[in-house]
This record gives sequence, structure tokens and C-alpha cells, in this order.
Amino acid sequence: MDTSIVLINAKIYEENQIIPDGFIKIKGMEIKETGWMSKYKADDQSNVIDLQGQVVIPGMIDIHIHGTAGADVMDGEIASLETMVKALPQEGTTAFLATTMTQSDENISKALKNTANFIKNYQKPGQSEILGVHLEGPFVNPSMAGAQPVEYIISPEIPLFEKWQKLAERSIKLVTMAPEQKGGLELIRYLKQNGVVISIGHSDAKFTDVKKGIEAGVTQVTHLFNQMKGLHHREPGVVGAALLLEELYAELIVDGIHVCPEMIQLAYRNKNSEKLILITDSMRAKCLKNGEYDLGGQLVSVKDGMAVLENGALAGSVLKLNDAMKNMLNYCDGCNLADVIKMTSTNPAKQLNISDRKGSIRVGKDADLVVLNSEYDVLMTFCRGVLSYQKKGAF
Amino acid sequence: MDTSIVLINAKIYEENQIIPDGFIKIKGMEIKETGWMSKYKADDQSNVIDLQGQVVIPGMIDIHIHGTAGADVMDGEIASLETMVKALPQEGTTAFLATTMTQSDENISKALKNTANFIKNYQKPGQSEILGVHLEGPFVNPSMAGAQPVEYIISPEIPLFEKWQKLAERSIKLVTMAPEQKGGLELIRYLKQNGVVISIGHSDAKFTDVKKGIEAGVTQVTHLFNQMKGLHHREPGVVGAALLLEELYAELIVDGIHVCPEMIQLAYRNKNSEKLILITDSMRAKCLKNGEYDLGGQLVSVKDGMAVLENGALAGSVLKLNDAMKNMLNYCDGCNLADVIKMTSTNPAKQLNISDRKGSIRVGKDADLVVLNSEYDVLMTFCRGVLSYQKKGAF
Repeated sequence: MDTSIVLINAKIYEENQIIPDGFIKIKGMEIKETGWMSKYKADDQSNVIDLQGQVVIPGMIDIHIHGTAGADVMDGEIASLETMVKALPQEGTTAFLATTMTQSDENISKALKNTANFIKNYQKPGQSEILGVHLEGPFVNPSMAGAQPVEYIISPEIPLFEKWQKLAERSIKLVTMAPEQKGGLELIRYLKQNGVVISIGHSDAKFTDVKKGIEAGVTQVTHLFNQMKGLHHREPGVVGAALLLEELYAELIVDGIHVCPEMIQLAYRNKNSEKLILITDSMRAKCLKNGEYDLGGQLVSVKDGMAVLENGALAGSVLKLNDAMKNMLNYCDGCNLADVIKMTSTNPAKQLNISDRKGSIRVGKDADLVVLNSEYDVLMTFCRGVLSYQKKGAF
Repeated sequence: MDTSIVLINAKIYEENQIIPDGFIKIKGMEIKETGWMSKYKADDQSNVIDLQGQVVIPGMIDIHIHGTAGADVMDGEIASLETMVKALPQEGTTAFLATTMTQSDENISKALKNTANFIKNYQKPGQSEILGVHLEGPFVNPSMAGAQPVEYIISPEIPLFEKWQKLAERSIKLVTMAPEQKGGLELIRYLKQNGVVISIGHSDAKFTDVKKGIEAGVTQVTHLFNQMKGLHHREPGVVGAALLLEELYAELIVDGIHVCPEMIQLAYRNKNSEKLILITDSMRAKCLKNGEYDLGGQLVSVKDGMAVLENGALAGSVLKLNDAMKNMLNYCDGCNLADVIKMTSTNPAKQLNISDRKGSIRVGKDADLVVLNSEYDVLMTFCRGVLSYQKKGAF
């Protein structure tokens, strides 16, 4: 009994074209067929949903997210990940990397084992999919700690990483690290050989350090502008390298708080839609009230969309990915929805080497689909073929 | 007896085209005719110079230069300006703004009177032309003094400027100032009304200050990156404003010392050839040996192309404008000679509102012409129709 779902009368942002008035047929977890409404043939077996001209985009992939709705990856509990995978479809996120923080070996190990267990035994369609782990720290630079607890920052170590990757059952897909730290380049080479994406972050690397990192295997920077060596006219730093070098993708937190709108424009002008990846870097307070919360054992105050440590440093965000999309469109002249889709779906899928099944709307790919209204509010989200969220009153 | 000069067999960078094999006829101070060699008709009245395929570009205009060959504008002496106008054709500079420094009212007044006197009574074809004065300071921000002596920095004052402009016989064409200083916007509005170009420099202005400055009349920034508020991801500063805002031209010192090559690339990528102006900002030690020199009453050590104050701060340059051109071509992928010509001739002429007679090779314009070999060495320079420099052994 495998009934299909058909979304009709939709404006569809397909991989290589926009269908202004089309349909998408979903069967099981996959996109089975797409086309213009003029070619659509109704059948009795399908569950038909009339989207009344609304937009369908590929499900968004958040490669840097710590928590939401009270839960955090570092809780190391199945219930926390359950909370996350159920909450994220609300913002159009159909897949993500469970992102760890700089913490003790014990706490990181616990989070990794828990995530691996979740992926193997709890993951199912109809929820945002955990694609693996983004290990943020502890191999970073103490001078660029930000909200990473300095006391747990350590030098890059291949054996320790190997231990963690084993506990994680090879689910660590991305590592944020500082190449200039002792042992940094060795770890980068090791990660590259083992198919792990390397992103420079929480780093005081000079331009030449970044170049060496790229030679060794780096392909990304973590939350561009935040916690990295800034731009100076005689030392471009990580920021300059990210803006200049085509080899690097750049994560960007577009909440208007971490980076001001003008600097988002500068990033867009220099990296354009091909090399930016929107992330939330959100923590457990997202979707909750203002108040005090925990982040990696540290007290965080959340007020009016801003999460700060006691020392005033920004401590992740409470940003939703569809709001990042809206902000991006607001801040950047000449940036349209097709461009932003690259930054929220296509590019992260490319970086994680899963473009065969995610990152765009195409027959044969996972039916990860988001229906938006003209204000870019999420009306419906399908995770691998299953309706996972529907805004009250929509359709 | 007004014989013509004809340059033949030249690759000519005309205003709107490149003639691969052409001729230029000069009569008096003007370009009389240009064309393809196939259309060239020899006549007996002309002095013919066969350029053997070398390149002819429009004379370069240096809008920011303090001195060269031992002389400085602040000397306030006719002999110093004589030295400058005779030395500059060696580097292809056929016109320039005599640039003053932050100094006492007395010293600035002396330099302005002297320059006005020179322009009126000593200026002649066959020498680099003084187009007027660039008043750099004293209306700048003490926190961004650089090599401007802090003790003479004062708040913007319209009456004082009026006094100076009168002494200068209206030859002040450009003012480098800090809009965020008390009275800054008032002075900007006054300058704009009076046809003076306003450039933000030695300034700690925030992005919003720059925007206000632009509304009041600012159209330029002085030596981009040097002595201005840098880029921060929550405060773009003057650097961010310069990179982002199309309203602003940006001066750039391309000696590889003031700004590193990667940052020159970043500037080129964001401002492109339409909005950059190459300058030298050179001081008296240019063309002289390493040693110790004076700059506005301060001791400057010059060694290996670098001029520094006793506190280590950069104190102008010893850069030649044709070397700036070479460096620009070396540092920036996709930047060609036609692009650099805009930055050394066309754009400064536009800024100074003298495109009717300078800034490109076109019939009717001043015969300010530079002949370059394939290494961009200057072989010959014509200043308003008169051969002013010829490299030994060339032609």
C-alpha cells in the first residue's frame, strides 16, 4: 500500500528550472515525477494537495546547528535529538548536521555515541534527517574561543579524532578547526583522506596559514566573520582568504546580529550564491521564550533574538533557517530565491557529497520539500516523502 | 612656426578603442589627429617619431603626491615645484595635485601661496602640470593621524578654509578630511557647493558617518585601507563603505607595502577599474638614495622602497606611478592595461572635472602622452605636446 502524494498548482524551484505552474509526485521517500500542470493527469491512487500557486523549494540543510526547542546535541540523549528532528521541519530544515561543542572528551564521546545510536536506530522519514556530526572544536584556537569553553580547547590530535570517529560510527562529516594550531595540518590531511570536510573556524590563521590549510584539504570556513582573524590591509586573515579564495565555501549566520547587513552584502558580492552556505548555529533556546539557558555548561541569556554569555560574547543564535533566507533576500540587492536555495540546499549537499539524493528538486532524489508563501513563511514541510509540518490554517 | 609631431607605428590606447598600429599627430598642446597607419599620410612639416610598435597611453594624473627628487610641496618654494614638475614625467605623470600636509596655518598658507604663484607664473608645457592643490588635513581625526603631525590637527572650519582657498587663488581642488569631526558635515556641504572634491581620509568614521558624508557631498576615500576605520563584521567602517558604496572613488597606493597584494585584489574586485584611482602619496625621497629625510617637520627613514617615521608608522611612499601600474597588473587577475589606464588617467580626470581636456587620448584633448615598452617602463613622456622625458637609448 504505497499511495502517492501529488502537490499541484505549485511554483516549483527545480534543479535547473522554475516551473511557474507545476506538480510534484512523491512516492515513498522519493520524488517520482515533476512537470507542468498542463501535463498533469489525475489518478485515484494519489493524495492530491492543491498548493494554490505557492512556492516549493528543496528542503533546507543546516550544517551547523547545536540545538532548538530546549534540546541540544551535547545533552547526549535520544530525547533531545527526537525534539530536534521534530522541531526543525517548522523552519524548513529537512536535514542537518548535529553539531557538537568544545567540551571534555567524556561529554563529546557521549554526544557522538548518542548521535550514532540515533541515526542507526531512531531515524525515520517524517522527521528532519541527521546527516551526521559537525564537530566544532575542541581543535580550535583559544584566542578565538567565542562561546567555546576555553578550558577544553586542545591541540589537534589524530588518535583522539580516530577514537571519536569510531564512537560516532563514522558519522563525523565536518570538523571546524584552526589549521595554525600545532598538528593542525596533519589532522587536516588525515581528515581529507578519510572523506571528512574541513572548515576553518575559531581560528587566528594568517592568510598564508589558510593557503597551507587549503593545500592540505580545507574547503570551508565556519561562520564567516565570527571568531576568525579579521581583515587587515597587510594581513588579510581568514576573513580576507574567505572573501578572495574560490576554493572556500563560507558558512554565514544571517540573523542581522552576528554580522551586520552591509557585511552580508559584502560576503554575497565576493562569494556569491555558489560559495555561501546559510547556517543557524542555533542553540537550545530557539523556539522558546526569553530567559536563561545552558550552552556547553555555560550560562546564556536570551533576549530579543540575541543569545549572549555572561561576558557579553555572542553564544550561538536563535535563528530559524527560513528567517535567514528572508534576511538574505532583504539585505542583498540582486539576490533572488533561486540564489538563496543554493545557499540553503544545493551547496551544503555538495559539501557533504550527498547531491545524489539531496540539495535540489529532481526526480529520484529524496522528497525533502518545503512549501513557502510569498513572505517566505513555511507552510508545509515534507521530510523524505512524509508531511512533517503544516502551518495552522494552511491549505 | 608651429610644427607638428607625429608618433607613428604605435599601439594606441584611445578613449574608446585600441588602435594596434596607428599614429597620433600633435600640434601645439593638443592631439590633432589619430588613426590607423593605413590612413597615415606623411607630410614635410611634421617631426616624425617611429615608436616601433610600442604602446601609447594617456598621461597619468597623480592626485595625491607630496614630493619627489628632494622636493616637497610644503617647502613652499618655487624651486621645489620646479623640481617636481621636471621629475614627474620620468614616471609618466603629466599632471598632478600638489598635496599639502597637516601643518601650522603659517606653513600651509605659505605652500598654498607658493603653489598658486607657480601655477600662474611658472607653469608651462613640457613639464608635468600642477592642476591644483590636494589639501590633506589638517581637518582629520587625531586617532588616524598616521604621518600627519597630530599637534596641528584641528576641527573643520569653513572660515579658515575660505582664507586658504583665497590665498591659493581657488586652486584647492580636493580636500582629505574626516567627516565625523565637529563641523565636518558643514565643511563638506560648503566644499561641495564650491566645486571642491571631498575625500574621506585619516578618519575613524563609522559606516553611518560615511553615508552622511556622502549625502553632504563626499565622493572619494583617501588611500583606501590606510589610516581609516577598518572592517568589522558589525561595523563596516570606512573600509567597508569604500568597498560597498558605488558613490565612492577610492585612492589606492599600490606599492605592495602600504597594502598587501591580496588586499589590492579585494579592492579591485569590489571597486573595479571604474572606481579606483592609483596614487603615489610619494614624499621627497623618491628618486633619491636610502637615507633620512624630512616630511612635514618629521624625520623619515627611507630604505628599500619604504619610508617610515621614527615610531615605525609608514610616512608616504617612494612609489612611481608607472610602478604602481605594473604592480596593479601583477597583483590582479583579469586586470589589463585598459583597466589600469582608467585608474591612472580617466578616473582622476573625471573626479577633477577636467575630462574635456585630460584623462584619455582623443582629438582635441591635451597632448599628454606616455610611451611604454612591454615591461611598462616609460620610454617617452609628452606634457601638453612637448617631449618632457625620453629614456636613454629609446628610439
